[in-house]
Amino acid sequence: MLDTPRANLPIGTSTAHWPQRHLLDVDQLDRDAITRCLDLAAEMRSLRERGERLDELAGHAIGLAFAEPSTRTRVSFEMAATALGAEVLALPMEASSTTKGESLVDTLLTLERTGIDTIVLRHGASGAPYLAARATGLRIVNAGDGTHAHPTQALLDALTLRDALTGLDGAVIAIVGDIGHSRVARSNLHLLARLGATVRLAGPPAWTRGFDAYPGTEVHRELATALDGADAVMALRVQLERDAGGGVPSLREYTRRWGLDEARMRLARPGAPILHPGPTNEGVELTAALASGPRSLIGRQVSNGVAVRMAVLSLLAA
Amino acid sequence: MLDTPRANLPIGTSTAHWPQRHLLDVDQLDRDAITRCLDLAAEMRSLRERGERLDELAGHAIGLAFAEPSTRTRVSFEMAATALGAEVLALPMEASSTTKGESLVDTLLTLERTGIDTIVLRHGASGAPYLAARATGLRIVNAGDGTHAHPTQALLDALTLRDALTGLDGAVIAIVGDIGHSRVARSNLHLLARLGATVRLAGPPAWTRGFDAYPGTEVHRELATALDGADAVMALRVQLERDAGGGVPSLREYTRRWGLDEARMRLARPGAPILHPGPTNEGVELTAALASGPRSLIGRQVSNGVAVRMAVLSLLAA
Amino acid sequence: MLDTPRANLPIGTSTAHWPQRHLLDVDQLDRDAITRCLDLAAEMRSLRERGERLDELAGHAIGLAFAEPSTRTRVSFEMAATALGAEVLALPMEASSTTKGESLVDTLLTLERTGIDTIVLRHGASGAPYLAARATGLRIVNAGDGTHAHPTQALLDALTLRDALTGLDGAVIAIVGDIGHSRVARSNLHLLARLGATVRLAGPPAWTRGFDAYPGTEVHRELATALDGADAVMALRVQLERDAGGGVPSLREYTRRWGLDEARMRLARPGAPILHPGPTNEGVELTAALASGPRSLIGRQVSNGVAVRMAVLSLLAA
Repeated sequence: MLDTPRANLPIGTSTAHWPQRHLLDVDQLDRDAITRCLDLAAEMRSLRERGERLDELAGHAIGLAFAEPSTRTRVSFEMAATALGAEVLALPMEASSTTKGESLVDTLLTLERTGIDTIVLRHGASGAPYLAARATGLRIVNAGDGTHAHPTQALLDALTLRDALTGLDGAVIAIVGDIGHSRVARSNLHLLARLGATVRLAGPPAWTRGFDAYPGTEVHRELATALDGADAVMALRVQLERDAGGGVPSLREYTRRWGLDEARMRLARPGAPILHPGPTNEGVELTAALASGPRSLIGRQVSNGVAVRMAVLSLLAA
Repeated sequence: MLDTPRANLPIGTSTAHWPQRHLLDVDQLDRDAITRCLDLAAEMRSLRERGERLDELAGHAIGLAFAEPSTRTRVSFEMAATALGAEVLALPMEASSTTKGESLVDTLLTLERTGIDTIVLRHGASGAPYLAARATGLRIVNAGDGTHAHPTQALLDALTLRDALTGLDGAVIAIVGDIGHSRVARSNLHLLARLGATVRLAGPPAWTRGFDAYPGTEVHRELATALDGADAVMALRVQLERDAGGGVPSLREYTRRWGLDEARMRLARPGAPILHPGPTNEGVELTAALASGPRSLIGRQVSNGVAVRMAVLSLLAA
Repeated sequence: MLDTPRANLPIGTSTAHWPQRHLLDVDQLDRDAITRCLDLAAEMRSLRERGERLDELAGHAIGLAFAEPSTRTRVSFEMAATALGAEVLALPMEASSTTKGESLVDTLLTLERTGIDTIVLRHGASGAPYLAARATGLRIVNAGDGTHAHPTQALLDALTLRDALTGLDGAVIAIVGDIGHSRVARSNLHLLARLGATVRLAGPPAWTRGFDAYPGTEVHRELATALDGADAVMALRVQLERDAGGGVPSLREYTRRWGLDEARMRLARPGAPILHPGPTNEGVELTAALASGPRSLIGRQVSNGVAVRMAVLSLLAA
C-alpha cells in the first residue's frame, strides 16, 4: 500500500460552501447542503473501499469529547478522522474536567488554545454543543446531545435509505419506538421531511405525544397502520436503563405490541428494509432473525456512518 | 530520521502461508509455522534496532479490545502495530459495551463495519476469541483469554529461550507455580513440546493436578527434582488477588517451598536463565536479586514481545 | 497542506547541549539553558503558526503516564509530541499498574523494554520523577509531582512573561495564593529568580510560611504591598478539594482578602498582565472579568505550553 498515490477528490466535488462552521443539528441544512454531504459521503466510501488514502484533514487536530459512553459513534468518528489524515485526541471528559470542576466551556477554551480545531462532542445535556459553538472558536460537531439531536446519525440513515430506496422523495418511512426521548428520531424527522419523505411515528402514546405537529409527520396509534405499505422501517432502541413508568408498558408488553418480526414486516412494501441505530436489544425492538436477515441494513448503517462523518469533517474544515 | 528509507523485509522472508487468519492458540501452529514466526520476529527485532521504519500494516486499522486490564501486553501490541504503520484504536471495552449490555459479538460486528480489520482481544472468559473468530469476519489475535491461552506470550518465551539456549530440541525447561490457572503455562506447554523440549512442571499439588497427561510434560512434587539440571527455569506469577484456599499454601509457605533464589537455581544447569511473564512479585516467586541478576531474561522477554507481535500481526495480514 | 515541505529548524538553532537527559525541575537549568529553551519554544510556536510540519521526534515513542488526572497538561504534551512526529502512547497508570500491584519502577522498566524512550510523568508523590530517572534508562519529563515541581509550567509562564514584559531582568512578579502546596509556585520561584526577576509572594500565612528564605523572594502579609507597582501578577488555583483548616480562611474570606479584581489590579503597574495556571475558580482567585479581560494572559499560557513542551521534548531527544 506504500505506493498508493494519495487521491484527490474528483474534480467537481466541491467541499466548499457548507452553510456553517458547525454541525449542530440537521435543521441548519437545506436540501442542497444535505445532498452535497450525502454525495460526498458516497464518494468517500468508494475511495476508501478502493484503499485510497485521503489527506483532507492532514495538519488538523480533532478532539473526541464524549461525556457519555459510546463505542459505536466514537469509533466511527475516530475512523473517519484518521482516514482523512487528522490527528485524533481522546479527551478525558469525565475524569479530569469533572474532578476539577472545570466547566465545559472552560475546558473547550483551553483545548482550543492547544491548537485543537474541531471538537466532536457528545454530552448528556441537550443544547451543550450550541453553547460550545457560541462560546469558543472551535468547530463543533454534535455527536448526540441529551434527547435533542444526533445529526450525523440522521445523515447516515438518510444515505442508507437513499441507496436502498433510490431516492427519498415521496417515500414513506415508519419509525417505531420511544420517539420522545430519541435524539435519533428527532434528527431523522427533520432530515427526512426535508428530503421529501413522509414519516410515520408509532409507539406507546407516552412516547409519541405531540409529534403530530411536525411537518410531514403522522403519529399512528397502531403498529399495523404505521407499517402498512411503508417503504422502510426504522426501529429505535428501547432504553432498558430508563425507568419506564408514566404510562409506558413493560418490556414484554412493548414487544407484544410494537416489536418487529418477519410477519409484521409483511405489512410493509415487499422487501422493505429495516434500520436500527444500534445497539439493538434483540427480541425486544425486533427479532434476531430480522436484525441479521436480508432486510436488515443495520451493518450498512455502521459503514455508512464512517463515510458520512468523513464527509461532515471535510465539509466543516473546507 | 527523516530520510531513513522505509525498509522492505529482506527477500526470502515470506510472510505468506500462515496457517490461519487468526491467532487463537499455539495448537493451531505446526513446527514450521512457529519457526517462520520466530524467524520473522528476530528479523523485525533487528530492523527495528537499526531504526528502520516498516510499513507492513499501513492502511490497516487494529483495535485493542482489552476487557481485562493490562499495561504490559497492551502497550506491547500498541508498539508492534504502530511500528508497522497501522492505525491503532483503543476500544473502550468495559465502559460502553457493558453499560449498554451490547454483547461481545455485537460490539465486534459493529467494529468490523467501521473498517477495523484486526482485533487484539483480551477477555476474562476462556474461549471468547474463538467465538469472536467464528462470528465475525475480523482477524482475531488472542491476547489472553481466561485461564485458557496466551499464544503471543508463549511465542515470545520461545524466542527468548531459543536465543539463550541456541535451540529448543531436547532442552529441559522447568515451569514453577500455579500451572492450573495460568494461560501462560498452558500455551507454553504446547509450544515447547512442539519445538522438541521437555517441560517439567512444579508447584503445589492443587496447581499441577492432571498435567502429567500432557505430551512431553512431567509433573514434579519437589522443586529440587524439577530444577535438577534444567536448561532454563520459568517462574509464573502468583495471583495475589486470588483466594488461595483449596489445598494451596499461604504466600509465605509458597515461597518457602517453591520460591526461586540463587541457591536453588544452582540445581539447574550452570548459568541456566530464568524467565517470568511479569509483573513479578519479588520475594514471592523469585528473589529481587534473581529477577535483576545476570540469569534474568525478564527484560528480554518484554522486548521480544514487541518483535513477536510485529511478526504475528504481519503474518496474519499477509 | 499535503505539499507543505517539512521544515527543518532554522540554521543556528542548535538543539544540542541541553544539560541533562531529563527535565525534573528547573533548578537543573542555568540561565543559558533556560534561554535556549524559551528561544526554541518561540521559534517552534511561529513555525507551527505557519502550519509547517516538524519531524524532530519521528521514530520516537513517548508515553504519557498521568497517575493524576489532568486535561490541560496531558493534552498539551500530546499535542506537542504529535506536532513533532512522535508516536504517543497513553499509559493506563491507575488502572492496570495499581490493580496488579506493579510498582512505578517495574512498570517503567517494562515500558522501556517495549521501545518507549521518553516518559512524561505526572505523579502524586513528590520526587517520583527522580526515582524514575535514577532507576530506568528512560528520558523523564516531570509533568508535576506532588507539591514539589512543575517545570514545564514554569517555563511556559516564563515565556509568556518574557513576551509580555520584553524581558524579566529586574521585573517584579507577584504570586498570590497557596504557595506552600503549589508545585507551580515552587518551580516559578526558582526560574524567575534565575532570570533576574524579584518574586513577591502573597497569601494566608499558613500558605506562605518559610518562603522568605528563597533568594530573590519576598513574602508579603498584605495583598496591597505585594501588588504595589508589580509588573505582572500570577494567581494560583485554590484547591477546593483540599480541606482548608490549619489557619487557612474560608473561601469567602480568602476571596475577600486575596481575590483579584480590576480595582486591586490598579495597584500594580498600569496594564500589568495577570496569569493563572488554570483551571481557574472564577470569583475565587480572580473575577471572571479579569480572567477574560485584556490583562489576561491565561489563553496565551496554554498555547505557549504546547510550544514550550515541543522545545523541551526536542532538547531532551537531541
